[in-house]
Amino acid sequence: MSTFEHIITDSENNHHEVDFHLTNDSFGITCTAPFSLTHQLLSGGKQQGSELLTLTQGDMTIRFVPTRAMAILDVVVAGTRFGWDSSVKEVVNPAFINQEAFGGLGWLEGFNEMVVRCGYQWAGHPGVDGEEMLTLHGRIQNTPASFVKLTVDQSPPHNITLSARVDEKCFKRSDFEVWMHVSVTPGENKLVIRDELINRGDYEREYQVIYHNNFGTPVLDAGGQLHVPAKSVSPFNEYAKQGLASWDSIDPPRKGFDEMVFNVFPISDVQGNTTAVLHNAQANKGVAVGYNTSQLPVLTIWKNLDTPKQGYVVGIEPGTSFAYNRRYQRALGLVPTIGANESREFDVSFTFLMNEQQVASQVADVICLQHTTLLSLDDEPLVTLPS
Amino acid sequence: MSTFEHIITDSENNHHEVDFHLTNDSFGITCTAPFSLTHQLLSGGKQQGSELLTLTQGDMTIRFVPTRAMAILDVVVAGTRFGWDSSVKEVVNPAFINQEAFGGLGWLEGFNEMVVRCGYQWAGHPGVDGEEMLTLHGRIQNTPASFVKLTVDQSPPHNITLSARVDEKCFKRSDFEVWMHVSVTPGENKLVIRDELINRGDYEREYQVIYHNNFGTPVLDAGGQLHVPAKSVSPFNEYAKQGLASWDSIDPPRKGFDEMVFNVFPISDVQGNTTAVLHNAQANKGVAVGYNTSQLPVLTIWKNLDTPKQGYVVGIEPGTSFAYNRRYQRALGLVPTIGANESREFDVSFTFLMNEQQVASQVADVICLQHTTLLSLDDEPLVTLPS
Amino acid sequence: MSTFEHIITDSENNHHEVDFHLTNDSFGITCTAPFSLTHQLLSGGKQQGSELLTLTQGDMTIRFVPTRAMAILDVVVAGTRFGWDSSVKEVVNPAFINQEAFGGLGWLEGFNEMVVRCGYQWAGHPGVDGEEMLTLHGRIQNTPASFVKLTVDQSPPHNITLSARVDEKCFKRSDFEVWMHVSVTPGENKLVIRDELINRGDYEREYQVIYHNNFGTPVLDAGGQLHVPAKSVSPFNEYAKQGLASWDSIDPPRKGFDEMVFNVFPISDVQGNTTAVLHNAQANKGVAVGYNTSQLPVLTIWKNLDTPKQGYVVGIEPGTSFAYNRRYQRALGLVPTIGANESREFDVSFTFLMNEQQVASQVADVICLQHTTLLSLDDEPLVTLPS
Repeated sequence: MSTFEHIITDSENNHHEVDFHLTNDSFGITCTAPFSLTHQLLSGGKQQGSELLTLTQGDMTIRFVPTRAMAILDVVVAGTRFGWDSSVKEVVNPAFINQEAFGGLGWLEGFNEMVVRCGYQWAGHPGVDGEEMLTLHGRIQNTPASFVKLTVDQSPPHNITLSARVDEKCFKRSDFEVWMHVSVTPGENKLVIRDELINRGDYEREYQVIYHNNFGTPVLDAGGQLHVPAKSVSPFNEYAKQGLASWDSIDPPRKGFDEMVFNVFPISDVQGNTTAVLHNAQANKGVAVGYNTSQLPVLTIWKNLDTPKQGYVVGIEPGTSFAYNRRYQRALGLVPTIGANESREFDVSFTFLMNEQQVASQVADVICLQHTTLLSLDDEPLVTLPS
Repeated sequence: MSTFEHIITDSENNHHEVDFHLTNDSFGITCTAPFSLTHQLLSGGKQQGSELLTLTQGDMTIRFVPTRAMAILDVVVAGTRFGWDSSVKEVVNPAFINQEAFGGLGWLEGFNEMVVRCGYQWAGHPGVDGEEMLTLHGRIQNTPASFVKLTVDQSPPHNITLSARVDEKCFKRSDFEVWMHVSVTPGENKLVIRDELINRGDYEREYQVIYHNNFGTPVLDAGGQLHVPAKSVSPFNEYAKQGLASWDSIDPPRKGFDEMVFNVFPISDVQGNTTAVLHNAQANKGVAVGYNTSQLPVLTIWKNLDTPKQGYVVGIEPGTSFAYNRRYQRALGLVPTIGANESREFDVSFTFLMNEQQVASQVADVICLQHTTLLSLDDEPLVTLPS
Repeated sequence: MSTFEHIITDSENNHHEVDFHLTNDSFGITCTAPFSLTHQLLSGGKQQGSELLTLTQGDMTIRFVPTRAMAILDVVVAGTRFGWDSSVKEVVNPAFINQEAFGGLGWLEGFNEMVVRCGYQWAGHPGVDGEEMLTLHGRIQNTPASFVKLTVDQSPPHNITLSARVDEKCFKRSDFEVWMHVSVTPGENKLVIRDELINRGDYEREYQVIYHNNFGTPVLDAGGQLHVPAKSVSPFNEYAKQGLASWDSIDPPRKGFDEMVFNVFPISDVQGNTTAVLHNAQANKGVAVGYNTSQLPVLTIWKNLDTPKQGYVVGIEPGTSFAYNRRYQRALGLVPTIGANESREFDVSFTFLMNEQQVASQVADVICLQHTTLLSLDDEPLVTLPS
């Protein structure tokens, strides 16, 4: 298909465009749902030097952060914001992040986006694995994109794709390229992510990825509900045991709640496709996270139902792995490898549900997937963590 | 009171002004003591990207570093420089600092200012506290200001205030905002700092702050003297024991001296106000550091009387805490907490003493505070450090 | 001698020129071999903010990285590239490097140059020395140059020198300045480095430096050969023992080879001058690395003959020290000290050999130095490393 392409960043050719504003007119496209892409170089505080790309298409606005591995900061659909409120307000430039801080939790000084990729050499909680200290959720999120490109289909419906390449390269250790493509089709309240991890090196490597997708109000509210087709759900740790029975329901913010995490083995259709839905109490706003279990076999539900300022947020996180430190996950078969010159694709989509009907339709799909399978609630965590 | 305001940096609104020069004329102010504010974006070496704000008012020139938490680099009054000479010459951009380096001493690669705030999640020496490795003197000093504003009173004497907000925000851990206000009143050789720590989070947190105020030549010279109204003074560690008797007198630079640190419990007036004075041998140049013991109950005297190049400098450091690692200070009652949505104010002033009379007047105030209280020199350190 | 000087960067005077292009005409020099110096501010990915200086003189092009301690990225002579191919492709800004990452191996995330200086507080492998964690190969390489200057002789042959000052300054710990001068003489296929380490402090300090000079294809190929005049050669560790007999021959790339390192005590002439030569199988391309054993007494041969993507590269690395962690090298007498206000000079040269005759001539020099001395191949590593 013929496309218009506009390269924004290309480190190889030392090309970098900043502070621009493109519209459908820039491409000579006349359309019923006009779009624009705005670039801002941010300044002040720890966002000095960070970049923000704002894509508006119809009544959907998506904010991307090329400086932070092309994370999706948030999405606004017809005035409803999908994303969450972290105590971290700025778009933190990785130059000011030290992931080794606080015993490997420095990553948290920048964490505030709706879509955060964790990986790819490793993901999960900090800790020593063999001879190495692994910091929280790997390196990718604090890596600026080396290549960023806008692509627009010449033919209606004029699909729009933002693509980026983020490298995880370290002499002798890693030769990963991650291509990230996020597409919108005008007329659909949906984001489609297709990522590709390529091992450019000559050695097979372990890898892990978790899509840390995070949602707060208004989709998240007391009485809201998660719908996840699952074979089994188990608590991440001792603390989460007490919340197992109500793992899929949303309580109001509660001081001292901190976080309960649940490990889910999802059910998918024969193609591996599956969906997890979160909707509000009224069941008229929600989000459906689509993914494929042949690519991302497990799902972490992160219920951080603490006070609004401490973080009232739920994560729907498909991954190759759970959130344990890597050293625990080999025995679970959740530390895959990627051979020399191999690639792995990861498809994740977000459908933004804007009324009761849309919510009901997605919930029906989940029920359909659950079908005759009985959900098993397993009392014991998969991993016995040191207390 | 009506004021002119000029916002220099505001990360929330992505506003940032650089390389400018403002004067009283910019505000339409005609005054006997003209002022100017100059902004420089620095470059070269590790100061690439650092910012410097130079405020000149009458014969006083103050240099601020917004990139380094609004530190005061130095003050020149009528040709006399207050500040000190570190081996670190550049205004180091925190992007090039790794506080974890050298076992948590990376902070020292940027340390060269007259006023350095240590805090606010913690201050003090590096080391493990519970499960956390705390690096030297906390995170704030390596955090760029998110908001910077100049305020000038419309009415004489046209007080000038530089305000800044520096955030210490980390998901789940910290939601601190620190507002820093430094004011000068034309006609006075004085800087007045009013800082406010605000806990924007929903949880009570521990905090610590030490004002690491540092003075070298010409205020510091052999035969110079400290005047500190105090209930008791004790050595920080074994090494400082030998210097206890002469804790308040200034010796010439001596190779191998390194540093002697003394813990002081100061005396204040009924409002909590107190002053510590350092003056030169001739008692015709000096500085009086004013603070309030209800805000900053203890004082550290840092005598680093080593060679000029290694550091001939004395710190007069009021704080919530001494310079020990935080783990030692809870037992001393020196790790205060700040509740949700609470704030704490810290008032610190610097009066620059330019002749014998001014020195004598401040020394008289100290003597007055000491009054009938006998100073106790305690031989033993408050904390027994591992050798 | 009269010279033209052009200052590019000077942090002390806040002077910094970017994105320029100078030629011999800029200096009013008419010459048979024209030269130019081009500056590029790089962008995209982790090279955002890095700088590149490209010096072209006749048919030689040299790329310098002021942001990375004036490293030499590569040299192209008449179309032949000297340098190597790392998985790290970008010119990584140290702002994005955390040397503490991966147990002190973070340095590897930026490693891709032909000439990388390791030092100066320490060099060598990561590990604890006394109370300090030393990260791989010291701090210098991740430090931007504070001063950069071009000097051109007014008289023929119009020698060209790029000079830089890179500081390793940390309050109380280090007051090092390193002046780096790289010169070319038009008409010669040669780079001459003269570096000067100055201890500006008042204390004697330990120091170490290793010139990590790295060469890949086309100089490096199967059947190629090293010629190093040496008293003795020993394996760095157990693994290298098996390669000792063929320490000076170049095998083809081999998966799983990783690296074999050899410790060499070189032979020099009465002035201390010596040369190590690497040439290709055809003996018609090569490089001769000249250095002085009174400055740099030992030589490390780093044979990283792994696959092209993993790193097919050989290091010819004269140094004050071998590549062991500093704690092992004091006993070997390879941790020198530098007194207060003392300086140390290091002369290293690269002669690019472009035909059989030039290769043969340099090899003859090596043979001449070896002369009657018998090379001793010592089976046992100098240091017994923990397994």
